[in-house]
Amino acid sequence: MRINIDHISAFNKEQEDSYIDELDLLKNRFSKKGISIDKIIQKVADFQVAIPSWALGAGGTRFGRFSYGGEPASLEQKLDDIGVLQALTKSAGAVSLHIPWDIPDDVKAIKEVAQSHGIAFDAMNSNTFQDQPDAKETYKFGSLSNTDPAAREYAIQHNKDVIKIGKELGSKSLTVWLADGANFPGQNNFQRALNNTEDSLKSIYKVMPEDWKLFIEYKPYEPNFYSTVIQDWGTSFMLANACGERAYTLVDLGHHLPNTNIEQIVATLMLKGKLGGFHFNDSKYGDDDVTVGSIKPYALFLIFNELVYGMKNNPQNPGLSWMIDASHNTKDPLEDLLQSLEAILIAYIQALLVDQKALSIAQQEHDVVRCQEILQDAYRNDVRPILKAAREKSGAAVNPLQAYRELGVRKELIKERGTKTMATGL
Amino acid sequence: MRINIDHISAFNKEQEDSYIDELDLLKNRFSKKGISIDKIIQKVADFQVAIPSWALGAGGTRFGRFSYGGEPASLEQKLDDIGVLQALTKSAGAVSLHIPWDIPDDVKAIKEVAQSHGIAFDAMNSNTFQDQPDAKETYKFGSLSNTDPAAREYAIQHNKDVIKIGKELGSKSLTVWLADGANFPGQNNFQRALNNTEDSLKSIYKVMPEDWKLFIEYKPYEPNFYSTVIQDWGTSFMLANACGERAYTLVDLGHHLPNTNIEQIVATLMLKGKLGGFHFNDSKYGDDDVTVGSIKPYALFLIFNELVYGMKNNPQNPGLSWMIDASHNTKDPLEDLLQSLEAILIAYIQALLVDQKALSIAQQEHDVVRCQEILQDAYRNDVRPILKAAREKSGAAVNPLQAYRELGVRKELIKERGTKTMATGL
Amino acid sequence: MRINIDHISAFNKEQEDSYIDELDLLKNRFSKKGISIDKIIQKVADFQVAIPSWALGAGGTRFGRFSYGGEPASLEQKLDDIGVLQALTKSAGAVSLHIPWDIPDDVKAIKEVAQSHGIAFDAMNSNTFQDQPDAKETYKFGSLSNTDPAAREYAIQHNKDVIKIGKELGSKSLTVWLADGANFPGQNNFQRALNNTEDSLKSIYKVMPEDWKLFIEYKPYEPNFYSTVIQDWGTSFMLANACGERAYTLVDLGHHLPNTNIEQIVATLMLKGKLGGFHFNDSKYGDDDVTVGSIKPYALFLIFNELVYGMKNNPQNPGLSWMIDASHNTKDPLEDLLQSLEAILIAYIQALLVDQKALSIAQQEHDVVRCQEILQDAYRNDVRPILKAAREKSGAAVNPLQAYRELGVRKELIKERGTKTMATGL
Amino acid sequence: MRINIDHISAFNKEQEDSYIDELDLLKNRFSKKGISIDKIIQKVADFQVAIPSWALGAGGTRFGRFSYGGEPASLEQKLDDIGVLQALTKSAGAVSLHIPWDIPDDVKAIKEVAQSHGIAFDAMNSNTFQDQPDAKETYKFGSLSNTDPAAREYAIQHNKDVIKIGKELGSKSLTVWLADGANFPGQNNFQRALNNTEDSLKSIYKVMPEDWKLFIEYKPYEPNFYSTVIQDWGTSFMLANACGERAYTLVDLGHHLPNTNIEQIVATLMLKGKLGGFHFNDSKYGDDDVTVGSIKPYALFLIFNELVYGMKNNPQNPGLSWMIDASHNTKDPLEDLLQSLEAILIAYIQALLVDQKALSIAQQEHDVVRCQEILQDAYRNDVRPILKAAREKSGAAVNPLQAYRELGVRKELIKERGTKTMATGL
Repeated sequence: MRINIDHISAFNKEQEDSYIDELDLLKNRFSKKGISIDKIIQKVADFQVAIPSWALGAGGTRFGRFSYGGEPASLEQKLDDIGVLQALTKSAGAVSLHIPWDIPDDVKAIKEVAQSHGIAFDAMNSNTFQDQPDAKETYKFGSLSNTDPAAREYAIQHNKDVIKIGKELGSKSLTVWLADGANFPGQNNFQRALNNTEDSLKSIYKVMPEDWKLFIEYKPYEPNFYSTVIQDWGTSFMLANACGERAYTLVDLGHHLPNTNIEQIVATLMLKGKLGGFHFNDSKYGDDDVTVGSIKPYALFLIFNELVYGMKNNPQNPGLSWMIDASHNTKDPLEDLLQSLEAILIAYIQALLVDQKALSIAQQEHDVVRCQEILQDAYRNDVRPILKAAREKSGAAVNPLQAYRELGVRKELIKERGTKTMATGL
Repeated sequence: MRINIDHISAFNKEQEDSYIDELDLLKNRFSKKGISIDKIIQKVADFQVAIPSWALGAGGTRFGRFSYGGEPASLEQKLDDIGVLQALTKSAGAVSLHIPWDIPDDVKAIKEVAQSHGIAFDAMNSNTFQDQPDAKETYKFGSLSNTDPAAREYAIQHNKDVIKIGKELGSKSLTVWLADGANFPGQNNFQRALNNTEDSLKSIYKVMPEDWKLFIEYKPYEPNFYSTVIQDWGTSFMLANACGERAYTLVDLGHHLPNTNIEQIVATLMLKGKLGGFHFNDSKYGDDDVTVGSIKPYALFLIFNELVYGMKNNPQNPGLSWMIDASHNTKDPLEDLLQSLEAILIAYIQALLVDQKALSIAQQEHDVVRCQEILQDAYRNDVRPILKAAREKSGAAVNPLQAYRELGVRKELIKERGTKTMATGL
Repeated sequence: MRINIDHISAFNKEQEDSYIDELDLLKNRFSKKGISIDKIIQKVADFQVAIPSWALGAGGTRFGRFSYGGEPASLEQKLDDIGVLQALTKSAGAVSLHIPWDIPDDVKAIKEVAQSHGIAFDAMNSNTFQDQPDAKETYKFGSLSNTDPAAREYAIQHNKDVIKIGKELGSKSLTVWLADGANFPGQNNFQRALNNTEDSLKSIYKVMPEDWKLFIEYKPYEPNFYSTVIQDWGTSFMLANACGERAYTLVDLGHHLPNTNIEQIVATLMLKGKLGGFHFNDSKYGDDDVTVGSIKPYALFLIFNELVYGMKNNPQNPGLSWMIDASHNTKDPLEDLLQSLEAILIAYIQALLVDQKALSIAQQEHDVVRCQEILQDAYRNDVRPILKAAREKSGAAVNPLQAYRELGVRKELIKERGTKTMATGL
Repeated sequence: MRINIDHISAFNKEQEDSYIDELDLLKNRFSKKGISIDKIIQKVADFQVAIPSWALGAGGTRFGRFSYGGEPASLEQKLDDIGVLQALTKSAGAVSLHIPWDIPDDVKAIKEVAQSHGIAFDAMNSNTFQDQPDAKETYKFGSLSNTDPAAREYAIQHNKDVIKIGKELGSKSLTVWLADGANFPGQNNFQRALNNTEDSLKSIYKVMPEDWKLFIEYKPYEPNFYSTVIQDWGTSFMLANACGERAYTLVDLGHHLPNTNIEQIVATLMLKGKLGGFHFNDSKYGDDDVTVGSIKPYALFLIFNELVYGMKNNPQNPGLSWMIDASHNTKDPLEDLLQSLEAILIAYIQALLVDQKALSIAQQEHDVVRCQEILQDAYRNDVRPILKAAREKSGAAVNPLQAYRELGVRKELIKERGTKTMATGL
């Protein structure tokens, strides 16, 4: 299934509800504050989020998995799925691959498929949290942190392999999510585990090409339930500093203890020039990996408020890698990703509407009421007209989810691929 | 300081930004779904939230308190403050009194002051969590749950006294928030404490006038840090059932463990006809008592979605008592309350915009994506034009906070009352 | 592999460290308080905990599973494994079966195997959270709560089937853990889901034999990440009351929000005669299902303190069903279960050592310091000599884990069964 | 009231329960593992914990305070109270002062009082979270992080004043607990607040004497309920690094988000040579400040396990400052402190009993079951005989709480000071 420009323009023409009147009212209102909606439309049209190759099939929990029809059975089919998202939204112009699930047999062919969809290769993801069928060493008791040098070396080599594949594809970064940790007190010597991890990361960092970045994730728990070696941003930041300039912390929204103020972490990392990337999802309890914006959209807005601020004021921090990282346990994965892209862009627009000048003054004056008003005044707008305008500008569908349904994409995929396929991944 | 209708209409006339165009677009859009914005405007105009008498001064924490100028020093001044809120919003037409902080010396005079502001007497609140200077028994080790019958009886009698005062004022309900609990394991016998509490509540219930309701709050912790006798809705519900038909559970948004699904509790209680009232505030960590809607506005919307559903579909549940219960540690209390009223009404409108018919169908069809779309489609509207229309309709200021500032209310209050007054309360 | 009485007595004889001196010191110390260690030894010798049939193999998370050698491949082998535990501890005299994973082909034969190990059939567990390969209806959108009557009926029938199998085996209770819920706001109508669940449970309850009990579990989240139909004890309690006298709430230690005071829930349920059973495990973050007592042994003691109190003072509450419910992700499952039994019995003994008379007096006198001292005075004892005495009395190994290792059980199991077997379950 | 050596020895003689038999059994058991109980006794006898000057009176919450009789009304009386603790335990040989609550009028006299009790001056604590009656600047919107340079400078100067007083008294360290933060999103610019804080801390650090240390606390929330400038160990660590070699992170057990793995933080900080001090208390929900060891004694043991490991293996980390920091809302403060000292020393002894050599081997062998056994084997001992031996050795009462009661200390203090005094502090 391939969606082309004619599908899109036909769909857009049929949309009876015009958003132009609403857009004009917004333009009018914000021009008085010196905020240009046109500039925001351009920024939104330019914003690209990577789609993880492992999130195109149904996800599950330890209690089971309910499968979905038409799942992609190969890397090529995964790229085709992302191609659908990209055609519909023009915001999904990159893929983030997971090795060993997505090792391309024919690099050249895969690059051509990607290019034909307008998809770039974003960060590569290594996997040292599972044993592959032919594994020579086990990660049961850790990978980069393992007390056993052979297991450590095996995990380091895997990461080097991932870099090699990534180089061929044109990726420029490696994301390391380390599941290492302990299920029980006493199982790990914390200090040894941390030292081993630092040494392993340095070994990986050393072989990384000069124009690559290393992203180090953190997570407090799961799959280990007593401790995780890289449990928080502080540990990731420390390790990134130890590795070198091109090592950064990566923030996954679901990887925090209850009630963590994530936006403050974002601000701190950007101030220090150490925020590398972002994994979008949402959660109510733990690392629930549900659709971004479905539970706490205001928190998402507050985070984007810091990101927008940092992108403007922190030249010391490089451009960020954006990626969705969710698990589609109940929804059609492609629909879920469309809802995710929608939520991300809405939060981004809301953040761009914040009157930063007025906010700065109100902060100086300790006018707390006004500070809150300024943020809420941006957040409470209906920004969907701006999003629609950005989409129309970039050749996307003004309402991607509706277009997806009207074009019968899932039905078509099932017809092409059957109902029994199962994508590799979580 | 008294704000009159001329202040309001003059202010409204000066508002250059018209909301009429935006309102028309909304009306047009929603009429296609069979949702009448005019009916919603009427509902919003009718919605009244009680202001607690103890929240008109600066709040504090155990680490201290930063005072505010112009705080009300008497019950009459408190009513005057609420009068300001009511004049500005026409949504604050009730006061919830706290005894012994607000015992009226002259009932008739106080009733006249209230009436002159258009303020009714909502639920009365008893206080058995502090010892008053002249107290004959101490609540240090509990009140209604105390092992000591004298302390229990003293607390019961206090509640009876509160009912008596409430009757004179025209209130129709009593809210019992029981701080009783334990700071340490072993301190309390859980079963004895629960039995004592049930007996005490029954004694209070028995003397309550036939047209009164009893509201039983719950809270997991604070001021006790190991256990609280009425720790959750289940305990409150059980006690309300034990008391009788006119006893209900009261939900305070901040009185829950991390990540609690409050909207589900609301739905369950309304289904069982046992939701009595609601205390609005917001929180990120514990019972933070910050401005409602300032942290989790989407959760507030989801709660209102259940309330709107229940008010329509659960005739077994009586009308609800709405109250703000926040602590104003950094903001001007009146401004904070204006922001609170704004957030409550916005969430209420958003919930009224939910296409319940379409939602019900999507739920039946297990179209989870569509279910989410329907909720977000309501939430993502800018509903402020509807709120402004409702305010104009009821004679309130279209922008109460701005009016408050332009009328110089706080400055006036400081002039009248000085900077050293301190309101009774938290 | 079958451990017989000769193995045990030979092992016990070899234990050089005598615990008799320590036991005598304890007896002497506690006799002064009027607490008989001998009676406690008898109670501990009598205490039996059911082993779940699904916990004899390696567990995993959604991120993968590291397998273990010698896992049982059939129900008979599972009973053999429990036979090992029972021979070593004489505290594991029951099995809790999970259907459809453990449907016996030949009931009579299975009963004989169980009998030969001294194993009774405890509560039966139904499974409506996964679709079986041949399923005619899907539980993807719920089972007992599903809006679709066919799916509901299918789930009800499954529970009836489980009861039928249980009757043949001699079980006397059914445990319903309902995973039903929603991953997203709007997905479920809370009220409809609750009503459906109540109706379904009543249908199951109605066909239950007169001497059976129904246990209703609750859990706040996972596998659903927005809401669970039976989210807390209050909901379970309400449903149990709706079903009838022989319906009870079952408490699983891991099924609570952060910081929940579980011991208070236990006390409340016993007071109301509605505590049916207990699932032991431990957790630091969520439903981690790690070894009971490995994270919060003092909390376990406080819970046992309420259980001991209730078993003595609440004749309205029937005898409890005790079961371990953990996931063995990193340890040998049998060793993990031995550690679990150890921790449970230690907490039980500590609770039996609490000077209830003195505690009651201290509570009456509001001597909070003394209350804490009394609990800690019981907890701080080294109670292992008492446990050893109870084991020796009942013919178990004084140190079951050590015996398990010295007897080379796992090695033997691998020899018998190979390294590639995989037990059904989680 | 002053307790002298004769009181103590008379009390010890009267203790009928000998602990010698139990001690001998322990010595015998542990000598087989190469662990010397005598060395442990010496370590325990040497261990000293500072008592905070603000914790000698009744604490309270924002909902009120129940006072206690005989509270110290002056710094001298506070030292007398600590003198009682020191005489009874010989483990409370230091005081941690809080400025401005405890500015000595006559330094020389105060030093003599302290010396007469055997009390040293531990870390000094500054206070920039409250406005003093005569304050020239307000901390309402922050102190070291304030956007207003005058407020910042005022707070810096206060810290310099505290250092000056501390120098005169013989203290060697300054603890900065910064309550600065925001109650609402938007109130603070995170980056500016962090930069200001770093600058302010550097200014303070610069004037600190060469032999002083700076301890920087962190805390996620309270008294600010949206964000705290130094929200976690990562931020504190970063600031300490920015200040210089003699700046360290201070860990307060209650200053963490739910479920934080504190022992891992301790291990990381000691590995990096940046753990400066420790504030003991316990909590179930937030910063509850209840008696250490009363809620999670096993977590306390795990923390001590890391501390003991670090004190042995991390020469890069200096000696630690130990302090109790609790709030005595329901108990006699002195009794509460005695229970705290008991719990700390018990956890310390248990940690000293861990067979580190065996643990290291088990970790290398990935024998997770054994790792857990080793920790629990240490924890499950009744270590009170060791504590009694240590006390007897150092001239303390073998049972300080009992001695305190039998000597009628509180009664005496009330007689001396009356029931209406109120100590400065929280």
